Order: sequence, then C-alpha cells, then structure tokens
Amino acid sequence: MEYLEERDLDYIAIGAAVLGAGGGGDPYVGKLMAKAAIRKHGKVPLIKVDDLTDEQLIIPSAMMGAPAVMLEKLPNGGEPEAAFRALETHLGKKADAVMSIEAGGINSCIPIYTAACLGLPIVDADSMGRAFPELPMTTFGVAGLPATPMVVCDEKGNKLLIETVSNDWSETLARTATIAMGLASMISIYCVTGKELKDYGVRGTISLAREIGRIILEAHALKESPIQSILELTNGFLLFEGKIMDVQRNLTSGFVRGSVMIEGIESDKGSSFEMQFQNENLVGWKNGKPAAMTPDLITVMDRETGNPITTENLKYGQRVMVIGMPCDPFWRTDAGIAQVGPRYFAYDLDYVPIEKLAQAKEQG
Amino acid sequence: MEYLEERDLDYIAIGAAVLGAGGGGDPYVGKLMAKAAIRKHGKVPLIKVDDLTDEQLIIPSAMMGAPAVMLEKLPNGGEPEAAFRALETHLGKKADAVMSIEAGGINSCIPIYTAACLGLPIVDADSMGRAFPELPMTTFGVAGLPATPMVVCDEKGNKLLIETVSNDWSETLARTATIAMGLASMISIYCVTGKELKDYGVRGTISLAREIGRIILEAHALKESPIQSILELTNGFLLFEGKIMDVQRNLTSGFVRGSVMIEGIESDKGSSFEMQFQNENLVGWKNGKPAAMTPDLITVMDRETGNPITTENLKYGQRVMVIGMPCDPFWRTDAGIAQVGPRYFAYDLDYVPIEKLAQAKEQG
Repeated sequence: MEYLEERDLDYIAIGAAVLGAGGGGDPYVGKLMAKAAIRKHGKVPLIKVDDLTDEQLIIPSAMMGAPAVMLEKLPNGGEPEAAFRALETHLGKKADAVMSIEAGGINSCIPIYTAACLGLPIVDADSMGRAFPELPMTTFGVAGLPATPMVVCDEKGNKLLIETVSNDWSETLARTATIAMGLASMISIYCVTGKELKDYGVRGTISLAREIGRIILEAHALKESPIQSILELTNGFLLFEGKIMDVQRNLTSGFVRGSVMIEGIESDKGSSFEMQFQNENLVGWKNGKPAAMTPDLITVMDRETGNPITTENLKYGQRVMVIGMPCDPFWRTDAGIAQVGPRYFAYDLDYVPIEKLAQAKEQG
Repeated sequence: MEYLEERDLDYIAIGAAVLGAGGGGDPYVGKLMAKAAIRKHGKVPLIKVDDLTDEQLIIPSAMMGAPAVMLEKLPNGGEPEAAFRALETHLGKKADAVMSIEAGGINSCIPIYTAACLGLPIVDADSMGRAFPELPMTTFGVAGLPATPMVVCDEKGNKLLIETVSNDWSETLARTATIAMGLASMISIYCVTGKELKDYGVRGTISLAREIGRIILEAHALKESPIQSILELTNGFLLFEGKIMDVQRNLTSGFVRGSVMIEGIESDKGSSFEMQFQNENLVGWKNGKPAAMTPDLITVMDRETGNPITTENLKYGQRVMVIGMPCDPFWRTDAGIAQVGPRYFAYDLDYVPIEKLAQAKEQG
C-alpha cells in the first residue's frame, strides 16, 4: 500500500499548479491544511482505480469559489468533513474513498485534507486531469453522470444539500450559494461507484502531479531547468520562450478574464505570443497562429526556476517558458469538446490537438 | 370539524389581500391552485391551534419570491408537495398539519393548496398575522426558533435543503437560490411542534381573512361599503379618505420601494396623506405627522368597493380609503420592534402603536 506523507504535499502542490493550466488557484492554503491533517491523523493511503470494486462508493471533495478568498476567509477546517458526511447521510451509505474532482490547483490538496480527517484512502485519479472553472466540466459530467446530490458548506456552519435536474443547474445554484457565502465554500459532489470511476475517471493524476513537483523541486536543488523533463513526462511541447510585455485582466461575472502578450527571446527572438485566459489559460497564438487551445493544457513557467505561474501572478517583465500538454483523450470526444472546447468559450476556432499544431509548425 | 371549501378560497383570498398591508402579492394564482386542489382532493379540515397536541409536527408551506412572476412562470403544481415531503424525509417524521407562514397575500392560499394535495388539515394560524418580505420576520423567528431546516423547490425539479446558523443566513441563501431559480420558488420552512405553535403562533388568521373577505363580497352584493365592518372586526381605524395624486415606485435589491401621495376629500378635504412602502406599506403620515407605522397594518382600499389595493396596483386618480389595523401583540415586544419596527426599515421614528396615534389625533 502506498501512502501520501507530508513531503508529498510539497510535490503535489507545485505539480498541481502546472496541471492547473494557469487556474485552479494557488494550492498554498490547501497544502498547509493537508500537511497539518497528515501530521495529526497520519498518512493517507493512495489507492489505484483498479484497487476499487465496482460497487464501492467514492465521493469527491473540493473547494468552490475564489481560492484567493481563502487567504482572508480561512476555512474552520470542519467544512470538508461536514459536506462529505452530509452527503453520506443523504445517500444512506458510507464512502470507501475520497477523490479529487480536478488535478490542478488547490483542489489537488483539499481532498487529501478531507481523506486524512476522515481516515479514508484517496484514489489516484480525478475527473478533469487539469483544472476547469465550472462544475459540469468534468469527465463524469460529459459521460452523463449527475453532479448532484451535492452538499455545499461554509466556515460559519451553513449547509446546503442540492439536487438538480441538470449539471448546469448544479453550477448555477451552487455558485450563487457560494457567492452568497462569501465567495468560497467546501463541497462534496459527483459521488461515483468504482465502476463509474473506472469507466470515466482520469487515472494517475495525483502521482503525475507529485512526479512533476518532484522534478521541479529537485531541479531547484541542482539549479537546473526542469522543463525538458516535464515535457517528456507529459508528452508536452515548448510553445514559446519570452518576456511578458503586457497583461490585461478584468473580473466579469465571477471570472478573471484577460490576456498576456509575450515578446520572444532566444530561439523565439523576433516572434510574439498572445495568450488569453478565463481563470485557466484557454488559447495561445504564436505570431497570430494558434499554438495550443483548450482543452489541451497551456501553462506558463518561470524561465529560471521552472515554477508554474498562475494567471493572477503573471506580471510585466517576467521571463517565461510557455508549455502545452495534451489533455485526457476523454476531452477530445465530441461531447468533451462541446463542453470545454474553444467554441464553448466563444472562440471562433475548431479544436485542433496540440500535437497536430506542433507538427504543422515543424512542417510549416 | 370545520372544513375549507372552494367558496372559502374566494373569501380568504380577498381577506388576505387586506391583511397583506399592500404586500404579499396578488393571491390570484394561489387561489386558483387551492380551489382546483380542493375540487380534486376534497375539502381541507381547518383545525384550531388548541386541537393540536404539544408533540405534533406542523410544517408551513409557502411561496418565496415575486408573486407576479407566477403569472408567467406557472408552478407545475408538484413543488409545494416536493418541498414538504423532502423536509419530512430530512426530519425522519411525518407532519400532522400544514400551516401558513403569513396571513397576507398569496401565502394565505398556497398552504391550503398544499394541505389539499397532501390530505392534511391546515391550522387556523400563521406566524405574522399580516405579510412581511423576509424570512426572519415571523413571530417564530422573533421567539428564537430556527427557520431551517428548510427546503426550496422550483418548477423544473431542482431542490435545496438548507440548514443555517441564523435566520438571516436562511434568508440570504434561500433568496439567492430563489432569484437563480427565476424569482419564484416553493418552500417548506419553520417546522414547529404543537407547543411552539401554541406559544408563538398568531391564532385565527385564516378565519379572520375569510371573515374579512366575506364582509367585502357581501357588501359588493348589497352595494354597500364594507369598510366600517372591517374596522370593527379588526379594531382598525380609518386613517384617510382621498384621491391618489402621485405614485413613485422603484425596484432595488429585489424589493419594490416607493411612495404614494393622497389628497383629502370629504372629511379629509384640505389635508394630505403620504405613505411609503417596501413591498408592504410601512409608514403613513397625515399632514406630515405619523398616522400609522410598521408593524401595524396599513391597507389602501377602493373607496367604492372596499377592495384592497396592493402597492403594485396603486394608480393616479384612484379614490381610496386608507385604513390601519393593530398588529399582533407579539410584534410590539422589543424583539418584535427590532425585527420589523420603523427603524429596521431605516425610518428615524420610534414605534408608536396605531391606537395611541389615533387617540393623539382626536385629542390634538
């Protein structure tokens, strides 16, 4: 049996920021919570999807809302457990394991916190393989599984059990409640059977985040760049190398939308790169041509340290490497593209997989 | 055993518009629903508070949001029952009776609909003795009883079970959900025991609404004015007789706020009356001096027919009688005044009971 220890959280948090594709929020508070819980309750068994029986019950645990708010409106620590237990009570059944709904950002750490508090194992999987901003944007959702029954809890002790007729309604009702609660809540959602997780989950994403994080932190120690190793591990591509010349950001309807302009250096000297984001990085254009687009992952990393830079931390003058990584194949189905492809985010672009764009570039 | 029949709904609906003090919404759709349910399921037993044992469970059923929306976004009819049953399931207990949370407006009829559908009796009581716009504004709330657990359902089939740490949070979370659901929902809330209802309920308000309605409809048949009889029945006062010269209305944060200016006729010739409202009529001034104020009831009635006119139906040129009626004594406690007195609605006025204002006027 494999276990997650405190040290793993350092790796997972930084790896999850890479898989967050610019979004998902800074895992900082979540990492502290998970490490403290492991210190108190002991290390957390990390189980594989295939270790589950088809009938076992798995409940994802997550934070909803604006992760930055958690720095000022600290969780009381009891909400994830309260949300989890309330869902168990509603289902009339005890869960066999906790899981992550998204591999990127703070929601990599929250479920480990929850698992430690509950004394349950965590499954090495998630339902995005990255971060996305809305509840229906999961492989479970694309497969037609309902997000509800779900439970939303806040740090004051308020609790909502939500049952909806569609995952879009789950998003609407949980989002408005979360905003009313002060922009952050803890949720339990998308309960699945072992069979459903085997059929629709994205496997191995906790290990992957941990491995990416380990590569980055070891490279720090050796004062080397981790980027080539990360590209090999994730089948990724170096999209651009440059210096940030401009960042535009605006907050609309609860999302951070914006764009960043990067001027090429080294091998990209003379070229330019534009990237647009809505919480997560959505589309990158090199010299006006698409280089990568959602649902593939686009992540900006510090050129020196290889540390991932989330959209809220992009700043003028940063020297960066932009990398792209292929998304889980599930997102590349018609249903997946309809839910999270470029047209969903109002881009007049047909989705082209990153490896095809890279190939075209090489041939071009 | 007394029963409510279809004909009673005609009386109750019009009487509830008088007790609505300008608010509570037009009972029209609620009346149609309740009459249809009685036609289908049979008449509804009307029981007295003292018929209940201390241990029995009573669940109020209500509509939340903007009653006018129900004319376009019709209920599917199943929501009140769904909300009621979901609360019973959560409590693990069957209810013995349904009740009204407010005596005024559409929520006089919705619980009768619910009782008919469920085959349960309705208690001759409510928790306001009038209409008020927010969930904490009940005698139950003032007595310290929690509004939650409560259930909110919409006509699409979405359902929320809400548990909060205060009734203000119940208001916030149920209100935001109701707005997201399209401005109208059906709720079950403030479940009470027979003992709690005996201690804190406002008794006899369904009978009172029915009696007021009967007086008005019989006066129509005889082409007489019902107003004197209503004043006798409710210990009320004629505050002003005049013609509406101006109506101001604006919609802010989901409430209709505004004022009406009335120019005196007959015995009030040469005088003027100003009234301000927020959903319900809040304060009336005759010649600049307060004549009545919340939580006492102020209702505008058509001078000819005695029909009550809700705030949304006030119009230039209407000849009206403004009447005032004392509120339930529960509202006149310090806790009651803190919750619904003039200062709660931002008026720089100490509450003075309507009968004292009337006496001062006579002496002045």
